[in-house]
Amino acid sequence: MRNQGIGSWPARRARMTPERVALSYRGRDRTYRELLERVYRLACALGGTLGVRRGDRVAFLGVNQPAMVETFFAAGLLGAVFVPLNTRLAEPELRYILEDAEAAVLVLGEERDGGGLPGRHVGAAEYEELIASGSPEPVDEPVSQDDICLIMYTSGTTGRPKGAMLTHGNLTWNAVNLLVDVPLAHDEVVLISAPMFHIAALAQTLIPCVLKGGRAVLEPSFDVDRTYDLIERERVTVMFGVPSMFGFIAQSPRWPTADLSSLRHLLCGGAPVPEPLIRTYQERGLTFLQGYGMTETSPGALFLGAERSVDKAGTAGVPCFFSDVRLVAPDGSPAAPGRPGELYVQGPNVMAGYWRRPEDTAKVLSDDGWFRSGDIGVADEDGYVRISDRINDLIISGGENIYPAEVESALYEHPAVAECAVIGVPDERWGEVGKALVVLRPDHRAGADDLLKHLDGRLARYKIPKYVEFVGELPKNAAGKLLKAPLRKLYGGG
Amino acid sequence: MRNQGIGSWPARRARMTPERVALSYRGRDRTYRELLERVYRLACALGGTLGVRRGDRVAFLGVNQPAMVETFFAAGLLGAVFVPLNTRLAEPELRYILEDAEAAVLVLGEERDGGGLPGRHVGAAEYEELIASGSPEPVDEPVSQDDICLIMYTSGTTGRPKGAMLTHGNLTWNAVNLLVDVPLAHDEVVLISAPMFHIAALAQTLIPCVLKGGRAVLEPSFDVDRTYDLIERERVTVMFGVPSMFGFIAQSPRWPTADLSSLRHLLCGGAPVPEPLIRTYQERGLTFLQGYGMTETSPGALFLGAERSVDKAGTAGVPCFFSDVRLVAPDGSPAAPGRPGELYVQGPNVMAGYWRRPEDTAKVLSDDGWFRSGDIGVADEDGYVRISDRINDLIISGGENIYPAEVESALYEHPAVAECAVIGVPDERWGEVGKALVVLRPDHRAGADDLLKHLDGRLARYKIPKYVEFVGELPKNAAGKLLKAPLRKLYGGG
Repeated sequence: MRNQGIGSWPARRARMTPERVALSYRGRDRTYRELLERVYRLACALGGTLGVRRGDRVAFLGVNQPAMVETFFAAGLLGAVFVPLNTRLAEPELRYILEDAEAAVLVLGEERDGGGLPGRHVGAAEYEELIASGSPEPVDEPVSQDDICLIMYTSGTTGRPKGAMLTHGNLTWNAVNLLVDVPLAHDEVVLISAPMFHIAALAQTLIPCVLKGGRAVLEPSFDVDRTYDLIERERVTVMFGVPSMFGFIAQSPRWPTADLSSLRHLLCGGAPVPEPLIRTYQERGLTFLQGYGMTETSPGALFLGAERSVDKAGTAGVPCFFSDVRLVAPDGSPAAPGRPGELYVQGPNVMAGYWRRPEDTAKVLSDDGWFRSGDIGVADEDGYVRISDRINDLIISGGENIYPAEVESALYEHPAVAECAVIGVPDERWGEVGKALVVLRPDHRAGADDLLKHLDGRLARYKIPKYVEFVGELPKNAAGKLLKAPLRKLYGGG
Repeated sequence: MRNQGIGSWPARRARMTPERVALSYRGRDRTYRELLERVYRLACALGGTLGVRRGDRVAFLGVNQPAMVETFFAAGLLGAVFVPLNTRLAEPELRYILEDAEAAVLVLGEERDGGGLPGRHVGAAEYEELIASGSPEPVDEPVSQDDICLIMYTSGTTGRPKGAMLTHGNLTWNAVNLLVDVPLAHDEVVLISAPMFHIAALAQTLIPCVLKGGRAVLEPSFDVDRTYDLIERERVTVMFGVPSMFGFIAQSPRWPTADLSSLRHLLCGGAPVPEPLIRTYQERGLTFLQGYGMTETSPGALFLGAERSVDKAGTAGVPCFFSDVRLVAPDGSPAAPGRPGELYVQGPNVMAGYWRRPEDTAKVLSDDGWFRSGDIGVADEDGYVRISDRINDLIISGGENIYPAEVESALYEHPAVAECAVIGVPDERWGEVGKALVVLRPDHRAGADDLLKHLDGRLARYKIPKYVEFVGELPKNAAGKLLKAPLRKLYGGG
């Protein structure tokens, strides 16, 4: 084939395993042969009726469903660029992305209408008409591993969303890194309920699943009961989720009695799995495979396999096989074990850059291919990296770096502290000083002085927060990760 | 790491799984951490004491042993080129290759002395001295996937051996193709008794084994009893061999009682596994994974997985995932299913070319990356390819192509024919005509007329051999494949 990209994968699969089921959705199965035929028809119609050319952007707005997978592969067949949109965005945000990407076509999931959004829309009814009208003959455009496969918009911590350009090679190598770490078999049944408009579900589950010829069970969203139903009925072998999803599953009344015997690999990302959750699953014979990454690294950068999931709990593991990670101290030297450093990633999975943003690209991507993650990590003696802070969360006080995670960790040692977060607030003398926001345990009492006294001796003087404020709760994302930006907004006045 | 080639793999493995055993040899184990230290020391000494530079050729002459693996990786660390030599070659042949490759260093296996061979030798004693003298500090030269990793000499069918240049990328993609087809786990124990100076053992067993962090059990040569001992003692999970090796194993008196329960994957190449052998192994719950390839394609081009090993027996399967195969009819058009065509291979596993032989390279490698194999294959309706003839074995008679395999297949339908081979012999009128060489079954009789009458109606007239000669036996290689070249020499006079 002239197509060396991921768009050719349904064809590569269909010549090996045409009769295996590729996709299951709402009780309906499609084999690789059927997937290929629909993808050929769609690519033909997109290229013909809708005039999509090589390099054009094809956007998709919808939850997980077969049309999303088909549009992804059809765009790849044409050498066009897939742009998945986050269904949770508001209309002005979606409009911004569609205009920034200059999308030639917007394919809509069956649950969406495109009201208010710019450009040429393809709704669910027209989508099936396009497939019916397209020819099932092979489409084979010359596409290389270096061509852009998709643009995925990432909001980063601040500012307008930027489109990370991921090549076919980026996503392929990420899948290869996963195959090195996880012994995926031919008969995997992969439950995909995390949204594929995020990189993890797309690149860590769908793409490796198709590479191996497994069966992807698509779910529009995560629901605990549906998850149990599907695990038992479809005999799911692989699941991906964030820690909170696995927490909800374990808290369900179905947990003690459900048949989980089909599960082989639980992939977890977004945040480290808390140790109690690791133990809860271990009692059922289930271990987590954890990782760390981001959209810009397709996403896998670090991986923590099943063997070390307990003794290295809380870390994100070691670099993926074909990738490299280094930790850079504030002075630019390599951070020694135990010392914090900004995490850089290099490898064939590192993005080509941000779409039409050469300046933003230059800020994070060096000429020799190292990507600055903006995250701060600490490696132990064995090279296992614990992600501690975002570099934007770093507090610089009188020329000294204060890593909030270190201060928070010391605060957690106080018996009255249920949750805490340390942020920087402006200070005339020191530039910035630390401020601790603390949620107390319901049955405990402690004043600011108690906590400051607790920290005295545990931390260098400059690291001890100048202010302590007691709050009712702290803002967190779906993965249970603390969100510092809103905290700074609320409490950053000093 | 700056090294993106296979030389960096021991380091990539050691950061993930330092304490796993990498190599077992004569009852001695070395972990990945130990392997890495020895490889660093050796690379340091090769680069320092012996002055090996990037691009220099480092030859190795010896049977399978740890020094061969270490030299392979150390050369890769330096960006030097590994040149494994076939231990069965005579001194003049070895000298020719060493001079053609301009080897900077010749590392000798512990069983060899380099008497009579040109260049700088490193014998077994000096080898250990070099390792002791080298620094264990990391060696990290900039090596890309496009750099040459090894030159492997292939005799082809005629002429002087040519050095196929395989890049780090070629060998990496071949291993990735294998991981897509075979669900290799982390705890594989891979028995390597086929010689690693051939591409199959090196690229289909050692390299994927290290990629996954498995344990390679090295054996200097194949021996049936040793194989049984090792399978039982080391709990071997993966074996590679040619069909005759698997035949010898099944014929052993130990077959009925041996504990083969550890075996997961039997990889077989060189020739299709005969159906009776497939059945014999199947009775023990063992299936073969078969393939077809050659040195120039690193080597995997076609793969026949366990699922289809019975119903597609005799074929070499379908193209490997990231590779493509096409069959080209004599007029240059694509050969239709059921029709013979020369097999071409394209993909990231196709060699960079023959060492210092641009004309030979141009004969087999087109500008768009298609490699002409010189083999003739026939695909069935499902795309499964049966390798039938070498193109040099093709008989051209009065302008018509005669495919010997087709004639032989018709001859085999006669009950008296035990074995047969059809070759072309010169003919004044037709240019060439067919000649059948036939071994009769011990308890059967048939004359030339009987056989020709048998063919009449079964084959077009022009395909029917003009001559039939009865012989006692036919020359075969270790894999049981008929050797046509010696037959033509002996019987080609017409």
